[in-house]
Amino acid sequence: MITRMSSLFLRTLREDPADAEVPSHRLLVRAGYVRRAAPGGYSWLPLGLRVLRNIERVVREEMDAIGAQEIQFPALLPKEPYEATGRWSEYGDTLFRLKDRKGADYLLGPTHEELFTLTVKGEYSSYKDYPVMLYQVQTKYRDEARPRAGVLRGREFVMKDSYSFDLDDEGLEASYQKHRAAYIKIFDRLGLDYVIVAATSGAMGGSASEEFLAVAESGEDTYVRSTGSDFAANVEAVVTPVPPARPIEGLPEAQVHHTPDTPTIDTLVDFLNGAGLGREFTAADTLKNVLVKTRMPGQKEWTLLAVGVPGDREVDMKRLEASLEPAEVALLEEADFAANPFLVKGYIGPGALQANGVRYLVDPRIVPGTAWVTGADKADHHVVDLVCGRDFTPDGTVEAAEVREGDASPDGAGTLVAARGIEIGHIFQLGRKYADAFELDALGPDSKPVRITMGSYGIGVSRLVAAIAEQHHDELGLVWPRSVSPADVHLVVAGKDDSVFEGGERIAGELSRRGVSVLFDDRKASPGVKFADAELIGVPTIVVVGKGLANGVVEVKDRATGERSEIPVDAVVDHVTGLVHG
Amino acid sequence: MITRMSSLFLRTLREDPADAEVPSHRLLVRAGYVRRAAPGGYSWLPLGLRVLRNIERVVREEMDAIGAQEIQFPALLPKEPYEATGRWSEYGDTLFRLKDRKGADYLLGPTHEELFTLTVKGEYSSYKDYPVMLYQVQTKYRDEARPRAGVLRGREFVMKDSYSFDLDDEGLEASYQKHRAAYIKIFDRLGLDYVIVAATSGAMGGSASEEFLAVAESGEDTYVRSTGSDFAANVEAVVTPVPPARPIEGLPEAQVHHTPDTPTIDTLVDFLNGAGLGREFTAADTLKNVLVKTRMPGQKEWTLLAVGVPGDREVDMKRLEASLEPAEVALLEEADFAANPFLVKGYIGPGALQANGVRYLVDPRIVPGTAWVTGADKADHHVVDLVCGRDFTPDGTVEAAEVREGDASPDGAGTLVAARGIEIGHIFQLGRKYADAFELDALGPDSKPVRITMGSYGIGVSRLVAAIAEQHHDELGLVWPRSVSPADVHLVVAGKDDSVFEGGERIAGELSRRGVSVLFDDRKASPGVKFADAELIGVPTIVVVGKGLANGVVEVKDRATGERSEIPVDAVVDHVTGLVHG
Repeated sequence: MITRMSSLFLRTLREDPADAEVPSHRLLVRAGYVRRAAPGGYSWLPLGLRVLRNIERVVREEMDAIGAQEIQFPALLPKEPYEATGRWSEYGDTLFRLKDRKGADYLLGPTHEELFTLTVKGEYSSYKDYPVMLYQVQTKYRDEARPRAGVLRGREFVMKDSYSFDLDDEGLEASYQKHRAAYIKIFDRLGLDYVIVAATSGAMGGSASEEFLAVAESGEDTYVRSTGSDFAANVEAVVTPVPPARPIEGLPEAQVHHTPDTPTIDTLVDFLNGAGLGREFTAADTLKNVLVKTRMPGQKEWTLLAVGVPGDREVDMKRLEASLEPAEVALLEEADFAANPFLVKGYIGPGALQANGVRYLVDPRIVPGTAWVTGADKADHHVVDLVCGRDFTPDGTVEAAEVREGDASPDGAGTLVAARGIEIGHIFQLGRKYADAFELDALGPDSKPVRITMGSYGIGVSRLVAAIAEQHHDELGLVWPRSVSPADVHLVVAGKDDSVFEGGERIAGELSRRGVSVLFDDRKASPGVKFADAELIGVPTIVVVGKGLANGVVEVKDRATGERSEIPVDAVVDHVTGLVHG
Repeated sequence: MITRMSSLFLRTLREDPADAEVPSHRLLVRAGYVRRAAPGGYSWLPLGLRVLRNIERVVREEMDAIGAQEIQFPALLPKEPYEATGRWSEYGDTLFRLKDRKGADYLLGPTHEELFTLTVKGEYSSYKDYPVMLYQVQTKYRDEARPRAGVLRGREFVMKDSYSFDLDDEGLEASYQKHRAAYIKIFDRLGLDYVIVAATSGAMGGSASEEFLAVAESGEDTYVRSTGSDFAANVEAVVTPVPPARPIEGLPEAQVHHTPDTPTIDTLVDFLNGAGLGREFTAADTLKNVLVKTRMPGQKEWTLLAVGVPGDREVDMKRLEASLEPAEVALLEEADFAANPFLVKGYIGPGALQANGVRYLVDPRIVPGTAWVTGADKADHHVVDLVCGRDFTPDGTVEAAEVREGDASPDGAGTLVAARGIEIGHIFQLGRKYADAFELDALGPDSKPVRITMGSYGIGVSRLVAAIAEQHHDELGLVWPRSVSPADVHLVVAGKDDSVFEGGERIAGELSRRGVSVLFDDRKASPGVKFADAELIGVPTIVVVGKGLANGVVEVKDRATGERSEIPVDAVVDHVTGLVHG
């Protein structure tokens, strides 16, 4: 196939778009791959659509290879199934909702668990029908609060979502592993540098959920990995190692101290160390109690929640939210403090919380037998040697404290370092949540119903265009991996002579006949403009037909390395075909 | 490729679905191609998705062949561009509208003229950039009042829409003809029996708009064709031949008659013929005045409109609506008559209409010099010999009278006969409507702006699945043309012996290696069940590996003709490959 730039619907831009913060966004717009059509909505111009379709093709091939079957659901869906699972309200503002002409409620599908479950229930009834894996490559809609970075986080985007349906846990584990292996193949084929991170807290089981993150500075997801093992996890999924409980006997009594002018942990520690208590205190010896309010989806009323963390760490709201999901979490307002006068700001301690029935969850490090400096529920007063399990008993633990580089890895090997990534895939053992909601059963060999167990697996297909661009570019432009490039070769005619144009035409024609797709710059523009566009567009191999043609040579340039070689014109088609078809 | 029915996500149904009225809907559901997911929203199961994708491929190939370039817009679009063209309100209830989390207005795209125009304006500026043709294959949304017949008229559907952008009318005509030729190729390749009909009234120019209709009893579109020429047109587009005006001098004076008990045209004609007026009257001599009310999009107030047609014809509301587009048309209610006492029901004449300023449009046959029997604006009274151009002067003409079989063809050759069809394509010279709305200009060679002229071209891609099924089925099931069939061959193993299964496996494998896609019925089901499913599913060639295998033969059956032949097992792969690859 030959694509002529003289007629291609493409205009590259010399300037960065004003609203673009990250390299992929900047370059995809400048190189004419995408255009903004709406907040979080992008148009795919011809070259962009080709990259998107190339990625879709790789995804489909690997999904088909594990026996998943492609189907396609509508995006416009009735409310009822999503009400049955509670997601109609759980999704909150992120769900696009609308009414039809009769006033019936609809939504634009953010993911399709409900529809897949109902469809399998509609077709299958016997244990002999299972297992089955189904997928779709589909446009999805989420009303993101902050759509950003072009196609990296849109409100309308292409996603591959698949679902596995199995009779038992072993089957689910097998389907999960098939998807995991397929995802590894897909992301390898797409030339991505990525990590697989644990994505749920330990309470749900180690392998129940993993995310594939493309390593990128511009990524929204922070993850940590161990310096001493393979361990990698989303910050939200890091499980704090729990120290052993300590004996309580023999610990000193709790004592309230007057601690004037100690509004912060630092001033408190300084004060105590100057108070002649015969001990050295650090921030890690203090217990900071942070108040938030929570409510479950669909609820109107908020409930107070106190979170206790060691004073040397902040509360990480994203970790807290992930731990409390699906509950909503908000910070307290002045009115909340006014309504609860027992909350003495800056001096909140377990005593007042528990006396007033406030739910109190603490960091897992706060085990029985540990002694803390904390608020005494009275302005300018703190209590020292308040012992967990003796002087206060939390209602449970919560993963809310920030994770820091240098923390011990949860698997005991090495310490944690932080990095940023773009979520490109997520595999998740759903279990029976949706099967329960819709009573998806198979009739077993003994004629008794068996509740089906499901897995859910997603790939952000349109986001991958941006993720690949984040990893594959330089200061001149994009540098596509062969598997997704909008063309195999960018053929530039550099010169004004008819003979050069004719030479270009001949080479383009021969390459095309050999199954090489050619982006052919046959424009009457200056070589400088053409070279700049070629670097910007990022096809991996650039062939320049120019004044060397008179001497029987053309130039072949590797876009990634910048390496140039002069190739005899008679050999160039073989040479380039070899590069392309390996 | 081999698709095994033992694991295919497919369950055929023996019973017709209760809500299916037309054969395509019945069979696509029974054969497991589609499932209803919402009112007017269908899920594509694996075989259905393949047919859809095959059609998309044919459409893309022919669009690419004429130089159209594929791009893709979001479906979720901001209100503003559609407000600029007036379509935000013109579309009425058919547009799905919604708000995002910030309360901003959005719509789900019904067609994308606005976005294409704005995108070309964003990229192109010089006359040298033109012409350009762009297309997309995209999911579209229309809140149809009556979604029906499965994927034949859905509220979410796949459409190919393309747009041409030219500097002048000749360019537009050339782009239009390229699309027309491409559509002919597409529909021919899809094995469709179709007609191309004129789709707008003559006032807009003969070739400005044509529809491609697949001939089908179940079609919603009625069209007429001439018995004596190539003429074919949508009923809405039939232009009434206008008779010449006649001399007024010498015509008798208009006379009011007391015509008791003549509430209908028939009773009126009978009364007049018995009244001794010395003439024979027919219904065609009477002038029937029908009152409706109209309003433009966005207007709240209705305006009265009187439509005069010869009394032997009814007013065809679809023709009237098409003539008055984009105005809305409604019948009068009792309250309207009460508010306008000059309207004497059953006896409305031009006199009261014109005296009261009611706009009065008449059938084109009502030319100056024609004399009519019509209402005298007084109960039980009619006027005879009311002459157009002497006693009344209409405000204009309107195409509102029904078109009947036997009417003279507008081109003067032959008479009209009626038939029904499914609209599968529409090509339309838009002109400068959208270019004007968005000031889409090219800078000409003289540095003066040239307003671009556009064409709009649509194909109902998902509807085509149903249209093809309407034309290609029999009482046993679907009978796909090769170009769209979900597989090349349906290979049935009929028997229980391992040798038969092994034989089937071997043939399936060899066919697949030869590039033949095989739907392989490897289920442990009875031959009867398998044969019935093969007929229902409708793959064009059915190969049966059964007891003949012991004698070295397999059966090859042509699904369309029912013809069977016994082929030596050694020759069957060559034989079938020949059938498939021609």
